[in-house]
Amino acid sequence: MIVNGKAYRTVWQENGGKTVVLIDQNKLPFSFELHACKGSSETALAIKSMVVRGAGAIGATGAYAMAQAFQEAPIGESAFWDYANRKKNEICVTRPTAVDLFHGVNRVFLAAQNSSNPRKAALDEAENAADENSDACKKIGEFGAKLIKDDFVVQTHCNAGWLAFVDWGSALSPVYAAHRAGKKVFVRVDETRPRGQGARLTAWELFNEKVPHAVQADNAAASYMATGETDLVIVGADRIAANGDFANKIGTLQLAIAANYFKVPFYVAAPSSTIDLKTKSGKGIPIEHRHEDEVLYHFGKSGATGAQERVLVCSPGSRALNPAFDVTLAELVAGIITERGIVKPGVSGIAKLFK
Amino acid sequence: MIVNGKAYRTVWQENGGKTVVLIDQNKLPFSFELHACKGSSETALAIKSMVVRGAGAIGATGAYAMAQAFQEAPIGESAFWDYANRKKNEICVTRPTAVDLFHGVNRVFLAAQNSSNPRKAALDEAENAADENSDACKKIGEFGAKLIKDDFVVQTHCNAGWLAFVDWGSALSPVYAAHRAGKKVFVRVDETRPRGQGARLTAWELFNEKVPHAVQADNAAASYMATGETDLVIVGADRIAANGDFANKIGTLQLAIAANYFKVPFYVAAPSSTIDLKTKSGKGIPIEHRHEDEVLYHFGKSGATGAQERVLVCSPGSRALNPAFDVTLAELVAGIITERGIVKPGVSGIAKLFK
Repeated sequence: MIVNGKAYRTVWQENGGKTVVLIDQNKLPFSFELHACKGSSETALAIKSMVVRGAGAIGATGAYAMAQAFQEAPIGESAFWDYANRKKNEICVTRPTAVDLFHGVNRVFLAAQNSSNPRKAALDEAENAADENSDACKKIGEFGAKLIKDDFVVQTHCNAGWLAFVDWGSALSPVYAAHRAGKKVFVRVDETRPRGQGARLTAWELFNEKVPHAVQADNAAASYMATGETDLVIVGADRIAANGDFANKIGTLQLAIAANYFKVPFYVAAPSSTIDLKTKSGKGIPIEHRHEDEVLYHFGKSGATGAQERVLVCSPGSRALNPAFDVTLAELVAGIITERGIVKPGVSGIAKLFK
Repeated sequence: MIVNGKAYRTVWQENGGKTVVLIDQNKLPFSFELHACKGSSETALAIKSMVVRGAGAIGATGAYAMAQAFQEAPIGESAFWDYANRKKNEICVTRPTAVDLFHGVNRVFLAAQNSSNPRKAALDEAENAADENSDACKKIGEFGAKLIKDDFVVQTHCNAGWLAFVDWGSALSPVYAAHRAGKKVFVRVDETRPRGQGARLTAWELFNEKVPHAVQADNAAASYMATGETDLVIVGADRIAANGDFANKIGTLQLAIAANYFKVPFYVAAPSSTIDLKTKSGKGIPIEHRHEDEVLYHFGKSGATGAQERVLVCSPGSRALNPAFDVTLAELVAGIITERGIVKPGVSGIAKLFK
């Protein structure tokens, strides 16, 4: 998508795969900076420290990081594969919830294993992974835009826009498609505490794309459903189980329950690669608990210094709990929007996608 | 309750009713400061600027402000009552949602009207109002504590503790009573964006009373209900309608819907003065919309300067919506805990309280 008049993706490689470049999402929305990772360890650290976040973007970054590791690997059959295996593990443990990460890393590793030129095969496969992600998101937008009627108000949560993928996004892709097709659409953006990805990233994306929107406290979504002022909810997913249960940013569950209560259609948008058929239900999805400081503090731009800094927003001496994701049950979901079409949640609906 | 070894209420009068003293809740939890209002206009401004907040505390402060106005009123029958009437309006418009404010102001005004010594009658009535509020909250604690079994985890929202009343609190009073009776109780404290009353005030109260607790993002409550890690929800109310619908801090509605979905008992605790029989249902309760800056910024203690300052937490250029309250339907409520006992929501249950 466009930033300052120039087309960007969220992640790409340079220098024959030896450098991975990311848009630094910890600096957004106040500063647009690129973060160049000059080795696979730097790329792994960037994933861990959330320079890049969002299922699709993490998946592509994992693929590029794995390809990067193959460029770095020492000469000699045994040393080469020892290095590649060690790096594979190092990259995979950076984030525990996103299935796209394992998927991206594994496909690059397998492509290298099955080639007589593993360095080239790894790099080609990483590029393919990124292109496929971008194409899938564009198609999600085409399918999802049919759900958005003129004058619709769409509620979303966290950031499932192009910053969370290689391009286009999942939950926001239908919004971008509808908006570009000339439909009037207004987006309610949940702030998404504790890390504020909605207020920081989704709002930034929508502002740059000139899509009308407003940020609201995470507490406000149900009240606008009660008054009939929300027509549709679309969220992203970090992992979808075979039965349609899915993990997404903390707060998605209570948004889905509220939508269900007020009969507002609740959709999940994700590339089919987010669906993990080996995970039978939401009970099989591990939930990442992050540091309590994300709740105890809030990070933003200081009026006094102009720099980003964190302020303590909690009573000193109190502790915090910080589950980063929750699991939403398939029964709350009206449909799953994928690049292969929109399906009903449940084992039979999801199985259709893979026939 | 005790602060730094000394017993305090949230509001009291000095100097024959000419000064109203408040605990400055905008300075908490980082600094404990008293805010002396030397005239009724200053007290009205303190209500408006949320130096004092919470239904009961606002009600008592309104009563003291009205009594203060009577002490200030010029001599001469006509001038005296003109002044009192003008001040009555000035105080009542400071906050639109809390019925306790009107109630507190009106009872003092009426007491003065019906007395040959209106100045003294107003002051006595304000003192009565504060004492009644404190006594009612203590009784709410006695009734509500019966709902809390040993080892219970109680979820609350916003601040309905003693800082929101004259003393003891509503939603937290049962917790304090259970804790003082030796029961093990753990409290989940919703941060309560945008103003963070849970993280700032409820956590401060619980820390000072040594009640085990943790702060969590408002997004997390449903996830702990899904895993069976929450036993009970108790919240306060700003106004309860005759049918049991009630207005409370934004986010209460989605908490109630989530509790209902997971069959976690959801209780409202409030003095019976919070019940407005003239308001037939939640549809009759006006909802205050506050300035968008409360959402766009977050207020906390800077690590750099040690002072409280606000940081911009939203993408520059984006706007925000900020409804301050929402209305929860009676059908989601297991019971209303009052100083007269616990009743089922609904017209007949509530009517029993007033027989």
